[in-house]
Amino acid sequence: MTGNVAAAKAALAHLDIEKSDTAIKAKSRDFFWYSPVLKARLDDVIADFVISPRSEDEVIEVLKVCYEHDVPVTTRGAGTGNYGQAMPLAGGCVMHLQHLNKVKHVEPGRVICEPGILLKDLDAVCIEKAAHELRMFSSTWATASVGGFIAGGSGGVGSCTWGSLRDLGNIIRLRVVTMEAEPRVLEFRGEELARVSHAYGTNGIITELELPLAPAYDWVEMFVAFDDFTPAMEFAEDLANQDGILIKLATVFEAPITHDYFQRVRPHVEPGTNLVGLLVAPQSMDGFETFTARRPGARVIYRSDDHDWPKAPGRVFEYGWNHTTLRALKVDPSITYLQVRYGFPKHRELVEKMRSEFSPEVLQHLEVLRENGKVMFAGLSLVKFTTEERLDEIVRLHEEAGAMIFNPHRYTLEEGGRQTVDDRQLRFKREADPKGLLNPGKMIAWDDPDWAYDRMYAYPGLKAAE
Amino acid sequence: MTGNVAAAKAALAHLDIEKSDTAIKAKSRDFFWYSPVLKARLDDVIADFVISPRSEDEVIEVLKVCYEHDVPVTTRGAGTGNYGQAMPLAGGCVMHLQHLNKVKHVEPGRVICEPGILLKDLDAVCIEKAAHELRMFSSTWATASVGGFIAGGSGGVGSCTWGSLRDLGNIIRLRVVTMEAEPRVLEFRGEELARVSHAYGTNGIITELELPLAPAYDWVEMFVAFDDFTPAMEFAEDLANQDGILIKLATVFEAPITHDYFQRVRPHVEPGTNLVGLLVAPQSMDGFETFTARRPGARVIYRSDDHDWPKAPGRVFEYGWNHTTLRALKVDPSITYLQVRYGFPKHRELVEKMRSEFSPEVLQHLEVLRENGKVMFAGLSLVKFTTEERLDEIVRLHEEAGAMIFNPHRYTLEEGGRQTVDDRQLRFKREADPKGLLNPGKMIAWDDPDWAYDRMYAYPGLKAAE
Repeated sequence: MTGNVAAAKAALAHLDIEKSDTAIKAKSRDFFWYSPVLKARLDDVIADFVISPRSEDEVIEVLKVCYEHDVPVTTRGAGTGNYGQAMPLAGGCVMHLQHLNKVKHVEPGRVICEPGILLKDLDAVCIEKAAHELRMFSSTWATASVGGFIAGGSGGVGSCTWGSLRDLGNIIRLRVVTMEAEPRVLEFRGEELARVSHAYGTNGIITELELPLAPAYDWVEMFVAFDDFTPAMEFAEDLANQDGILIKLATVFEAPITHDYFQRVRPHVEPGTNLVGLLVAPQSMDGFETFTARRPGARVIYRSDDHDWPKAPGRVFEYGWNHTTLRALKVDPSITYLQVRYGFPKHRELVEKMRSEFSPEVLQHLEVLRENGKVMFAGLSLVKFTTEERLDEIVRLHEEAGAMIFNPHRYTLEEGGRQTVDDRQLRFKREADPKGLLNPGKMIAWDDPDWAYDRMYAYPGLKAAE
Repeated sequence: MTGNVAAAKAALAHLDIEKSDTAIKAKSRDFFWYSPVLKARLDDVIADFVISPRSEDEVIEVLKVCYEHDVPVTTRGAGTGNYGQAMPLAGGCVMHLQHLNKVKHVEPGRVICEPGILLKDLDAVCIEKAAHELRMFSSTWATASVGGFIAGGSGGVGSCTWGSLRDLGNIIRLRVVTMEAEPRVLEFRGEELARVSHAYGTNGIITELELPLAPAYDWVEMFVAFDDFTPAMEFAEDLANQDGILIKLATVFEAPITHDYFQRVRPHVEPGTNLVGLLVAPQSMDGFETFTARRPGARVIYRSDDHDWPKAPGRVFEYGWNHTTLRALKVDPSITYLQVRYGFPKHRELVEKMRSEFSPEVLQHLEVLRENGKVMFAGLSLVKFTTEERLDEIVRLHEEAGAMIFNPHRYTLEEGGRQTVDDRQLRFKREADPKGLLNPGKMIAWDDPDWAYDRMYAYPGLKAAE
């Protein structure tokens, strides 16, 4: 289905088009390789060409030309997603939004920007101009783009306070270009946001975002050590339930994650140390210290504003969320992970059950998260990978126990999500991408409406490098 | 026990001492008269003299001189408390802190100030200097002092997000002067804060406060109307559980409170209208509108940023918390109120039960509140007063049903609180006020350690005007 690639490429040659084959290969890849399952399937996927538009007009031009020539377009930011979101399964054009990096307006509580700006750079502008920062961001803050986060992410650092991206109020407005003979530019707010947020660019390309901001503070970043797992988990949750203590991160690492995979932290812990990583607002540090003194087992081993570690560990949030997996992978390439929802009010119980069933094959890495006003856990469990069959069995046993899995070993929206068709996204794709050229192979409902979800979906149009 | 009043007064004559009898009478009174029970007992209470120190040194001088002459000292701010906190039961000296109104330091997230500054004035400084504001304040924001709020209040506007004043992190530090032969100046943080916060000035006088701040926004103030009570209550709670929508107030008024007591709102409602009052951050208005559109019964009848009411209603938070009672009292002097805790997770059920049992004798006025991270309700129910016996019976029936009452018809810390001795406060009083001269009659544990709480405590030293 890659259409007339040569014609499209020629028609777009006056734009910023990638010349180097190495760069084309690099820009055809995201972080799908966290998953051995995806790695086995997507490692040879490559775009025919990569183009980086410099404006919304150029985005429109790319979409119009590719539409005319039936060339698929897979849009990407920095490519730090782990679900293969930005992998151009059918080849064709990869549209890289790195040049769309302008901040158009900042005020206390709100920012309007383009999608290609990195989260870190966006935060810097918001802090400078309005003493505010993003409510939430991925642990890839330093390298990921805001558009990629919104189109391919679900939450992150800050979700312990603000919930998930899908929650009302965490995205204000998205401006979206369709892929039609004459692309349209649409503005979505409210209920309409669900059409295109977390849609992997399958039904429209985001060219502008309006997001709420939170006040910026010099967060105190900390590690708190515990001999046992349960008190560590309880500490993280109970702290998040302290209404008067403002936090931006509460992460729990089961032993021996810290000792085995966090090289800068390793000299300060034992193999049996369970760790909690935290970001706490400076004005909440007195409250935090009082809270912590009530827990005899809790030992603050690092705080960013006052420590004597010869080698500082860097940002504590760069140990949490998907960076935990990344750090583990670097030490042990056989490690992969799961994304688990441990829902309130059975979250603790469920974590303990999964832990007793699977540890150490599966090690608990928990992120405190709010959902419907309740503190609960997202699990980004580390899994010692053996076979795909065993991985599928672990997934199944979690689901049977009531722990929902957002399977990161699948590249479709449905399988990585709630395993059901999102009608709003599908209906909008019919309108906005009538030829089905946007990020093909990622929406099962489009390809095969009767798919039974009884096995891993394999996109029939998958095209690997020749 | 009023000691040698004349000697103390003479020794302090060089300070700002009240000359006018009318002013002495006025400054001997707080808002105890919300309660017909307290009104019957405290209406004639009056101080022997009223003094307004201009500095911490003068506070120390007042305490030292009164200690020497065995003269009781009852400290007050603006006197807007409803529990008779600031009533000088034993006469003696009322120390008014109005001149201690300096703001010493503001930064984003934190303020250091003196106790006598009005909440409104403090907010103005914090907004101007750091674009921040108080996390929470009483509905008497325009007239109440911050010291009075901390020493005599429990929470208020903002508690739907930040919880109560007693929660860790909502007070950072208090500086306190003791009443001894040589008064000491102490600094309390962490666990020690519980000694003197919400202690009515019975065991030390706060001369400086350090409080956390929240970002200041141009809150959109709204009224949302419902035909039925239950959907109104659910709307308020469910909105507060939206993690992505930032609010500062969610108040529920059962019909016909709005129609009967809110004169500016009355032209816009029916007698059967149940109302929700809200403060929503401007960046959350899109999310709010989406949320509200999902509730067919919800009608936004007023929003402060866009309305055509010929007479604007003023600040919406001045309809909530204790202002609801105040507005009702002005129309119907036989109205009084209760303070009820409807604790998670049975809060809705308990409200419905109390409503079906008592409405319209008791009308539900609910304030959304966070406690241990969970959204629940504080009830400031309006009660049509008939007799003290019936009021006691209503209290008893609430308690039997599991709805804790903080009885506002009692003037002691214990009876207005959890009906148990607070050992931390008592122990500190022994240290800081060995002669028992600070706000006498307010701590039963001091007067009568064996009190059985089987009837209303009557302070034996009560001294009325002659």
